Amino acid sequence: MSFEVRPAGSPPDAPLKLRLTFGEMPVEMAVPFASYDGSLSSSWLQEETLYVDVLPGKVSLPRRYSFRYVKLEVLDTSPKYRVSFFNLKCMTVTSADRANVIPFDHVDPLLRDIDRISVRTLEDCTQDVFEDGPKRDRRLWLGDLRLQALANYATFRNDALVKRCLYLFAGVSDERGRVSANLFIAPELIADDTYLFDYSLFFTVTLYDYYEATGERDTLQELWPTARRQVELALEQLDDSGIVRDEETWWSFIDWHESLNKQAPSHAVLIYALKRAIRLAEAVECDSIGELERCLADARRTALDLLWDAKQGFFVSGEGRQVSWAAQIWMALAEVLPSEENRTLMRRLLSTKPDIAPTTPYMYHHLAEALLVVGLKDEAVDLVKQYWGGMLKNGADTFWELYDPGNPDFSPYGSPLINSYCHAWSCTPTYLIRRYGL
Amino acid sequence: MSFEVRPAGSPPDAPLKLRLTFGEMPVEMAVPFASYDGSLSSSWLQEETLYVDVLPGKVSLPRRYSFRYVKLEVLDTSPKYRVSFFNLKCMTVTSADRANVIPFDHVDPLLRDIDRISVRTLEDCTQDVFEDGPKRDRRLWLGDLRLQALANYATFRNDALVKRCLYLFAGVSDERGRVSANLFIAPELIADDTYLFDYSLFFTVTLYDYYEATGERDTLQELWPTARRQVELALEQLDDSGIVRDEETWWSFIDWHESLNKQAPSHAVLIYALKRAIRLAEAVECDSIGELERCLADARRTALDLLWDAKQGFFVSGEGRQVSWAAQIWMALAEVLPSEENRTLMRRLLSTKPDIAPTTPYMYHHLAEALLVVGLKDEAVDLVKQYWGGMLKNGADTFWELYDPGNPDFSPYGSPLINSYCHAWSCTPTYLIRRYGL
Repeated sequence: MSFEVRPAGSPPDAPLKLRLTFGEMPVEMAVPFASYDGSLSSSWLQEETLYVDVLPGKVSLPRRYSFRYVKLEVLDTSPKYRVSFFNLKCMTVTSADRANVIPFDHVDPLLRDIDRISVRTLEDCTQDVFEDGPKRDRRLWLGDLRLQALANYATFRNDALVKRCLYLFAGVSDERGRVSANLFIAPELIADDTYLFDYSLFFTVTLYDYYEATGERDTLQELWPTARRQVELALEQLDDSGIVRDEETWWSFIDWHESLNKQAPSHAVLIYALKRAIRLAEAVECDSIGELERCLADARRTALDLLWDAKQGFFVSGEGRQVSWAAQIWMALAEVLPSEENRTLMRRLLSTKPDIAPTTPYMYHHLAEALLVVGLKDEAVDLVKQYWGGMLKNGADTFWELYDPGNPDFSPYGSPLINSYCHAWSCTPTYLIRRYGL
Repeated sequence: MSFEVRPAGSPPDAPLKLRLTFGEMPVEMAVPFASYDGSLSSSWLQEETLYVDVLPGKVSLPRRYSFRYVKLEVLDTSPKYRVSFFNLKCMTVTSADRANVIPFDHVDPLLRDIDRISVRTLEDCTQDVFEDGPKRDRRLWLGDLRLQALANYATFRNDALVKRCLYLFAGVSDERGRVSANLFIAPELIADDTYLFDYSLFFTVTLYDYYEATGERDTLQELWPTARRQVELALEQLDDSGIVRDEETWWSFIDWHESLNKQAPSHAVLIYALKRAIRLAEAVECDSIGELERCLADARRTALDLLWDAKQGFFVSGEGRQVSWAAQIWMALAEVLPSEENRTLMRRLLSTKPDIAPTTPYMYHHLAEALLVVGLKDEAVDLVKQYWGGMLKNGADTFWELYDPGNPDFSPYGSPLINSYCHAWSCTPTYLIRRYGL
């Protein structure tokens, strides 16, 4: 952003002191940042305090910001002069090329709008890498990358960027070959010291999706060892009974829900990834196919033997045998039950509505896709229109990191000020609409 | 100033938010700037709040600061990392060339130190123009210029800069030919809309001093019309009785003293300037010599007839017939009384100590020079050692804009935070010591 400042009155006899506040949402304009006491760093709040020594002058702000609103406060001039502002300009940056977007229209104006906003959300998150959000964290997370890549195949076809991101992850796996949950790109590439069970497996899944979308064998050949390694490492996490070991730590993401037990959904993610790993192993003619198939059969069997509660008709998770939406959704996506039972599971989920519900667009995406996988297309359309359409009705022109229709101030970080209101993992309706023909 | 920042701990997962506070004095480190409520703009308080998005990184601060102290506050990192700082570098800027300083030593170590600190004060104020102070206002004021030029002739001999400043003032006189009290240099030269009776006359005085120091006739010839014009305009300010007209406004500077009446000292400045104008008129062989001499005789006569209170033995000023130090000092400098009586006047001033005393180093300079003009050298040496030596004992390594030994917090602006602690008009001891052989 840049603008010109011109003085009015006597010649400026003191510097101009300005504060600029950038916001994606009105709350960022209304609530003083000084009141913020959330768990994430206050340094994400977009604010600049600056001085202009020479007037008239041009101010060019040094950083990239993500905003729809900007508040310009003149903190001090002097009693002798005032200022006015001219030629405010903003340069937007993205590595997505709108000219490449696959043309799309829809008879339903709401779905057309939701598609359009999904595309814009993806566009704003497409930078040097696929970022999670342009306001926060501006980072390459595997969970976001997987969904951005899916939306990208249906829209911008910036497939080279997906490939770049996959190579970046593979390039900095740890000494055990484990892929980090996210990467830092500048000033040099380093893996974060955060490792998540589900995110590491999504390397394998994202490579599978990439190969499906592009048929590009060289990348597959080169990255297959890393993809296979994530599955091997995940299998090491199985306990004696053959179920993914539950932990007290933040070991698997799944969703931002404080009480969510991660065991069953993580076990389902393993099955989901194993299925795709087997197809990749077939493509590269790897001799591990047989072993992977045995592991898949075992994982599926233990899920049914130990996690399936036939009486309730739900999968249960952890010592407390928790019934969560996340567990049912991931088991449905992993297609653990036969087709008809899988559809019944999702119908039961929608009607029973267990307490441990989705909290993020990320989880809602998986719910929508699970409905489509089991053939409940009308329910999926309703969900997309209600959930993403709800953000739209609330003024969104990009989709948000967090949206709880019943609790508009929801933030897992203690303050809606710090939420990201343009977030990669919320861009998937364009993928759902176009891929599944909603 | 620049420095490197390196992270420690996990990779930095949020920007670094820093605040830097620059101070010439410890008070600027100790008292929060947010508490400032003085009359000058808070934008002079030297503070930067900035973000470092990429770590490790180098921070190069964009502005010029004047400081001996700097406070670095880490306002936020994230729970995952801390930072350390390396290679902090400061680049000092001046257009004064220390290699040119006329070598000087003194048997008295205190006078040697006072001379040294005067030279450094001048050095720091010598930039694109002679600034009043590097912290505040960074501006070319005629009252400061006159004293800087005198100190310069005894030290750096950067005479070209004096000439530049004289031309700048002459170049932007107003439609009546009046020279402004100060100039703005960037982005383009403009005169401030502040005009002061004494400061405008100092254009004439400064040109006289320049010609005395350099003998350079071309500049004198070119600038004489402007110098003469200031005297003519000052003479228009005389009332029917022939005394400079007193006003309620801020029409003449003289000193920062709230109750000081400016009439008598301003009348003395007129006499002082007239005497120098006559010598310049002689040098350029101007036909106005006779007229100027008549005016001088008139001004001197009215001073003695109307402002001299023989009973008190002091000059009085304004309707209230105020007896101030400033009136006696300027009358002594203007040598209105015969030599012996002039010396008696200054002796009487030192012993009687009227209430309306000097408040600034600027006024103390004129007191010291008045003592030297009347031949009270010992008293002048004592004054310089007590007053400027007092700042030195209080830790000064440049001389201050304001120093009241009895009131260390004195500020005409309502807060010592905003005072300038390296200020041109305080650099004159080097001139007094060297020129008068103290």
